Amino acid sequence: MTRSRVTSHDVARAAGVSRTTVSIVLNRSNSAVIGDDTRKRVEAVAADLGYRPNSAARMLKNGITETVGLVVTESRSLSVDGYIPLLFNGVGSVLRRKGYHLLLETLSRTRSKNPYTDLVESRRIDGLLLLSPRKDDANLIELIESDFPIVLLGSIGHPKEISVDTPSTEGLRDAVAHIVALGHRKIGSIPFSPPGFSAADMRLAELRGFLADCFISIPDDAIVFGDFSAESGFKATLALMAARPDTTAIFAGNDTIALGVLGALAHLGLSVPGDVSVVGFDDLPFAGYVPPALTTVRVDATHQGRCAAEALMLRLKGKAVPEPRQKFKSVFVPRVSTSPVR
Amino acid sequence: MTRSRVTSHDVARAAGVSRTTVSIVLNRSNSAVIGDDTRKRVEAVAADLGYRPNSAARMLKNGITETVGLVVTESRSLSVDGYIPLLFNGVGSVLRRKGYHLLLETLSRTRSKNPYTDLVESRRIDGLLLLSPRKDDANLIELIESDFPIVLLGSIGHPKEISVDTPSTEGLRDAVAHIVALGHRKIGSIPFSPPGFSAADMRLAELRGFLADCFISIPDDAIVFGDFSAESGFKATLALMAARPDTTAIFAGNDTIALGVLGALAHLGLSVPGDVSVVGFDDLPFAGYVPPALTTVRVDATHQGRCAAEALMLRLKGKAVPEPRQKFKSVFVPRVSTSPVR
Repeated sequence: MTRSRVTSHDVARAAGVSRTTVSIVLNRSNSAVIGDDTRKRVEAVAADLGYRPNSAARMLKNGITETVGLVVTESRSLSVDGYIPLLFNGVGSVLRRKGYHLLLETLSRTRSKNPYTDLVESRRIDGLLLLSPRKDDANLIELIESDFPIVLLGSIGHPKEISVDTPSTEGLRDAVAHIVALGHRKIGSIPFSPPGFSAADMRLAELRGFLADCFISIPDDAIVFGDFSAESGFKATLALMAARPDTTAIFAGNDTIALGVLGALAHLGLSVPGDVSVVGFDDLPFAGYVPPALTTVRVDATHQGRCAAEALMLRLKGKAVPEPRQKFKSVFVPRVSTSPVR
Repeated sequence: MTRSRVTSHDVARAAGVSRTTVSIVLNRSNSAVIGDDTRKRVEAVAADLGYRPNSAARMLKNGITETVGLVVTESRSLSVDGYIPLLFNGVGSVLRRKGYHLLLETLSRTRSKNPYTDLVESRRIDGLLLLSPRKDDANLIELIESDFPIVLLGSIGHPKEISVDTPSTEGLRDAVAHIVALGHRKIGSIPFSPPGFSAADMRLAELRGFLADCFISIPDDAIVFGDFSAESGFKATLALMAARPDTTAIFAGNDTIALGVLGALAHLGLSVPGDVSVVGFDDLPFAGYVPPALTTVRVDATHQGRCAAEALMLRLKGKAVPEPRQKFKSVFVPRVSTSPVR
């Protein structure tokens, strides 16, 4: 590979037009002023010579970076749980098709008081996708109220937000109905995060609510918090079963935690679902293929990522997003890790 | 958040210096010509006013983007296997510390003949990290032979490459010794990819070689190719056990595939390790916590990512990389999914 670059000068000379014409055609700015023949000739010559506009120069000129930032606030979760990779896959499939780039961003890096300012003002990105937004994030609310293009993966219920959310509600309600119908009354829960993580807090509140509808309560020591990982599921289950040995059903905060729940129950000599029923969450790609195949709640992370990226693309083109607060229902998926109480 | 921006004009006026001085100080270019007092005053005023240089302008001026591209050639693997997220985590931890950004790139997007040209010529990135390089990739060899900063996660054995590789060799050799010592002779294999993926091909060749050292061969129909996922492990195991029902030990291409192997064996009514021993690969975070805890080979993906990013940072500073072809040994981790042949 030679690093001597074809310049817009070379393209202009070969096409017999001015450099300005080349620039207008290739940056697609104000191209109405250029005749069709000329435009086609310039594009053909540029392709022929292998000319590529310097993107830093183009960015400066147009203020368009063709880059979208994906902000992941909980970077640890990225490496131990399979939900975020699926989201990435969905987001990436749309961006690739649109010729957009994906910049991974974290909020922890910044030293400024408002962690979004650096991202927005850096002019590295045209818009943002934000995972796991928090309702108490005043800086985020400010950003939503400004005109900066941002799409939430999740929701904070702000009237001006554009969001693609996958609330637990429907799937979890059906999972609770299933467990209650199987006769379980001694129930434990291992949320995927300690209190403070909005989605986990809300899911625990919903779980308690649906059980309360059936006059069942979860004692405090039957709730042991996990941290996304199978290891946390393993350890939490040991603690839960030590505190409440009569537990017959466990709701795991995600499928990865559920793996650790299965491991810990086997370690204790308990069978699943014979002695204890286990419900996962997310329906990660492995969930139907482990022993025993996990009863879980399906959340289509790839679809969520895809739709959020599509919404941001519309927003970047100045188009209206038809459904600014998209919600996809979760779906209960019964498999073999749950059975009637013994 | 207000979108009216503080400009270098504002900083210059408030600090009582020229705009050029502001630019020199804040871009850290040629700053020797500016006195210490002036430099400090400009920096203080800029911080005070919340001024941030437009990064597109800075990129154009310095030719430095403070952005690194991470090229993932197999994007599907990202979403179903836990290895790449760990790599990301390692890469990200270094980049965050150094104030660098991470741009996710794929090679499939491009229409040009040389898929790297778009990345390199776009001037969006200062350097590249490339996952799963292939020996037969002539364009990659060209890129390595140019002076473009690139670090391979994996190796193609090129004398000029800078690479951080985690060869299977040591861990796999010990895993084979363990399985052979347990008396297993009827052995199956489920590689993590069909032929053509260098790392999978090499691992299968090594597995055959180590077994051949002990006068054991794997029949062709006891090798069923997977595709990174638990689902593929499940299906491959059904095919393998149908073709070779006397199999007593299975080497899974990765731990995610091993989950599916466990699922399929349970589905067939076979116990692990009682009837069939299972060996995973990678030692993903869940491996020690599933039932039964997986015997596997540990490859430290987070460390690999961290070291590759550090090597690229050195390279970007024009410093020599002390160990340009770093190799980290894999380590055999015996747990409970393997036992003496029945």
